[in-house]
Amino acid sequence: MKVKNLVGDRFKERPADCIIDSHALMVRGGYMKYVANGIYSSYPPLKRITKKIEQIIREEMDCIDGQEVSFPVALPGSLWEESGRYESVGAELLRFKDRNGSPMLLGMTHEEAAVHLVREYASSYAKYPIMIYQIQTKFRDEARPRAGLIRVREFTMKDAYSFHTSQEDLEQYYEKCHKAYERIFARAGIPEVISVASDSGMMGGNISHEFMLVTKVGEDSLAICSECDYKANIEAAENIVHNQNTLPVDNLRLVPTPNASTIDEIAAFLKVPIMNTCKAVVYQKDLTGELVAVFLRGDMDVSEAKLTNYLGDNIHPALLDENSPMVAGFIGPYQLDNTKCTILYDQSLSGIDYLVCGGNQIDHHYTGFNILRDIGVVEYKDFSKIREGGICPHCGKPAITISRGIEVGNIFQLGTKYTKSMNMQYLDNKGELHYPIMGCYGIGVGRLAASVCEAHHDEYGPIWPITIAPWQVHLCCLRVDDAMTKEFADGLYQELQQAQVEVIYDDRDVRAGVMFSDADLLGVPIRVIVSPRNLQENCVELVTRDKVVNTKVEKTLILTTIKELIGNMLKSNTRI
Amino acid sequence: MKVKNLVGDRFKERPADCIIDSHALMVRGGYMKYVANGIYSSYPPLKRITKKIEQIIREEMDCIDGQEVSFPVALPGSLWEESGRYESVGAELLRFKDRNGSPMLLGMTHEEAAVHLVREYASSYAKYPIMIYQIQTKFRDEARPRAGLIRVREFTMKDAYSFHTSQEDLEQYYEKCHKAYERIFARAGIPEVISVASDSGMMGGNISHEFMLVTKVGEDSLAICSECDYKANIEAAENIVHNQNTLPVDNLRLVPTPNASTIDEIAAFLKVPIMNTCKAVVYQKDLTGELVAVFLRGDMDVSEAKLTNYLGDNIHPALLDENSPMVAGFIGPYQLDNTKCTILYDQSLSGIDYLVCGGNQIDHHYTGFNILRDIGVVEYKDFSKIREGGICPHCGKPAITISRGIEVGNIFQLGTKYTKSMNMQYLDNKGELHYPIMGCYGIGVGRLAASVCEAHHDEYGPIWPITIAPWQVHLCCLRVDDAMTKEFADGLYQELQQAQVEVIYDDRDVRAGVMFSDADLLGVPIRVIVSPRNLQENCVELVTRDKVVNTKVEKTLILTTIKELIGNMLKSNTRI
Repeated sequence: MKVKNLVGDRFKERPADCIIDSHALMVRGGYMKYVANGIYSSYPPLKRITKKIEQIIREEMDCIDGQEVSFPVALPGSLWEESGRYESVGAELLRFKDRNGSPMLLGMTHEEAAVHLVREYASSYAKYPIMIYQIQTKFRDEARPRAGLIRVREFTMKDAYSFHTSQEDLEQYYEKCHKAYERIFARAGIPEVISVASDSGMMGGNISHEFMLVTKVGEDSLAICSECDYKANIEAAENIVHNQNTLPVDNLRLVPTPNASTIDEIAAFLKVPIMNTCKAVVYQKDLTGELVAVFLRGDMDVSEAKLTNYLGDNIHPALLDENSPMVAGFIGPYQLDNTKCTILYDQSLSGIDYLVCGGNQIDHHYTGFNILRDIGVVEYKDFSKIREGGICPHCGKPAITISRGIEVGNIFQLGTKYTKSMNMQYLDNKGELHYPIMGCYGIGVGRLAASVCEAHHDEYGPIWPITIAPWQVHLCCLRVDDAMTKEFADGLYQELQQAQVEVIYDDRDVRAGVMFSDADLLGVPIRVIVSPRNLQENCVELVTRDKVVNTKVEKTLILTTIKELIGNMLKSNTRI
Repeated sequence: MKVKNLVGDRFKERPADCIIDSHALMVRGGYMKYVANGIYSSYPPLKRITKKIEQIIREEMDCIDGQEVSFPVALPGSLWEESGRYESVGAELLRFKDRNGSPMLLGMTHEEAAVHLVREYASSYAKYPIMIYQIQTKFRDEARPRAGLIRVREFTMKDAYSFHTSQEDLEQYYEKCHKAYERIFARAGIPEVISVASDSGMMGGNISHEFMLVTKVGEDSLAICSECDYKANIEAAENIVHNQNTLPVDNLRLVPTPNASTIDEIAAFLKVPIMNTCKAVVYQKDLTGELVAVFLRGDMDVSEAKLTNYLGDNIHPALLDENSPMVAGFIGPYQLDNTKCTILYDQSLSGIDYLVCGGNQIDHHYTGFNILRDIGVVEYKDFSKIREGGICPHCGKPAITISRGIEVGNIFQLGTKYTKSMNMQYLDNKGELHYPIMGCYGIGVGRLAASVCEAHHDEYGPIWPITIAPWQVHLCCLRVDDAMTKEFADGLYQELQQAQVEVIYDDRDVRAGVMFSDADLLGVPIRVIVSPRNLQENCVELVTRDKVVNTKVEKTLILTTIKELIGNMLKSNTRI
């Protein structure tokens, strides 16, 4: 391939709408083009990268006895009705009707399709374990697509589904898949990816892990213990709070709090520590509109994931107005009408004797509120997010640090949620019927490409690892107007192609600066520069994109040097 | 891969709903599973076949300077509004709204997306020619999916788009692509595919060809001249009719024709040759409901494709009732109210002096109808289908034969339909703006797989060509209970895998009959049978699926013999 024929433009200016570097560089480098919100076309360099990533994934899935299959992108609604997800999943599931009015949907995950494919086949225990996977287009109608390929609506995903006859067998396979994932990320050039315990959300099941690239621009928050090996998505990490009561014995009193409505203002106005305030956060269930009030310590935040899991319903922040049964800004548990909303208490309130809370009328709060004395026995649950310095749920030390990460893959132990609801059964060796136990395993291909770019780039462009780089060698011919130089570079281009080296060749009549900045944007690991000056010294220049190698190579040694360098680079990316 | 682990069932009974052999065999062989009307999942054998087909296509597209890209499956409606196809294409275009109510569609072809991808890039003549292609899922909401993978709603397609600065350049490229297609079909094992002139339909443009596998179960009809090299889809072949008037001079007379309503009954009742009858076929435009009456010779059939092209509107057969301005069964051109419907004359009526036609009242027809005398000058156009024995539009001889074919690919010269409507322009070397000229080129991957099966199978299963077969070698171990036999077969399995031979191994404890019928259904070209009896003779049995080879091979020669056979098979499939 010659740069002059390569479809797509490369340019200098950072697009204004790109909030993260990988997005900006992949637009500037001619990798992708915006088609609609969260929907992109890929230019050849990105297509080459994703094909290589897909091949790495395929090899590792085959290595753990995966069988590649293919499920439809457009699925009949009836299939998701079997599992109950046609109703339970929110607006991110794109539902539509075909020409005959039949309900359909665009697959965003394929548990139902996987069960459908093997339901009859896997009717005997002797057929187990089974793992099937596909690499296919998915659609998820995200409310807020962002950050280029990190959160899109249409994406290519490898999704795998395993079926087992015992929890032990699932766990063993889960561990094998965990290791395969580590190999995939290492081979793709980001061995630094960590796995964290995660929230299973709408997938069902209990144990699940996310593979996270830790980076400031990540959209997930991770709780990592600095004292033990605990790592979890904050949505999954229990928020353990040990309260020490700091206020003297007091009675419940309604006090006016004019001009104070935020927790900070009220704490300051009433001169109580913020840890002695009780905050209300109110949601509504998506389907019924029913109100749900969560009370928690004033300095804590609600984890909507924990709340959703507890309720088993999707929720959104409530819109309160004068007709609501609550007074926005002044909501407290005392004398709040529990027939008009569900009232929940976060465990961060447990063990505090005297609290300030909303007075349920404008510009008023209660002080000296004691939950046990004034309300009675309530059930405390974990609805809030763990924070920096929080208590590690594993070792119990106050050693939690919060980092941000991009989720590049996930694995779930699903249990029998889908096999039960879709009535998939097998006969064991005693002739008894059982529901198989499932696992599922996902990796987003485009997001992985963008994550590698995010992890490995400089201000000039991506620094692609050789395993997924669009080409292995970028050959630059400076001064194509010099016949000898052009002839030598042309010959080298031929020679590299014949030696099966993936080479992109820049023989445009442009300034060296333009040539090098385009090469930086394409991020090819090995650059070979042919120029009249080098040729006078009987050599060419060989530079790696990561600047580790910068040397001159004698003309007759070029091919062997390049092949050796490629070999070494490939080796260093595949070791694990 | 071992047969005992291979996901999917194989069975004997032909499913009742399979009208063609390839469909039946691919269901019976565990290749595919019905998910919804025209929507299937693929089991591993089919996935392996389609991946190989995709790789052949990719290599041949790269060979003619194609650059692989990727367009979205879900496209914004606004993109198709630019070309006008959002409105003009019928219900086969699946339109829906996303969560924000924005109109979207599932891509069934990607001219608009292709123009969108290169519109800014290709702003100078120096960037041309360009060819971009993708291999991607498409959706076409067919009214009548049928015949397994032949006509589905969701399918994987290679679609390519080329852009040129002159018609000559397009034509040269078109010819190159035509040759690449011939190589693709030859490599996939069906070199017998022919190319025929086709109707461009909704794609726009003029010249186009379809690549057809001639087979009785095809859904297209082809006009092939036995005297010259003319080949065309009957929708594209001009129907030339030379009429010889056979009736004596007559006057127009309205006659009662009780109990005669079909053309045959009327011709018999009035004792006139059917070639002297004038038939009416009435349609309605899909959008407006406007009536269109086509008059043609009684023994001819309307080509809806020709009619649609002429009208520029989609049509459907009219539903006539008592409120219609026409009397169904008795419609004739004489005194028919042309303010209430469009009246068209097929050229098959030209040159007949006296006709029988409908009387526009129940149970009446006219005889002695002379179009010029009774109506005046009318315009005759080609709206009817060419027939067996018809006149060849190329050599003029009455030598047309009608065959049936499956369309496995198509190529179109699109002209500037899309570049003009979507305002894609380039500057030529004089600084003047022009619209580039486009071509587009499609191949359905699944349909190609099914077509190969249709062309090459016996009653027991598909006979896959080695280039696309799911595996190269099917190793059968008869009598796994015999330790020596099992050990030898296990060893051979290892040896073949190490030698990079794609092998599927059947070491199930089943009867030879079961093993062989499953092998027949998997259709792997080379079968190696290990049994105690063969081993006693120090050999194994080697049989090809097409029964050309059936021999015993000495144990030490197995690997070399197999590799040689694979090599020969690959060679014979790639020569062209």
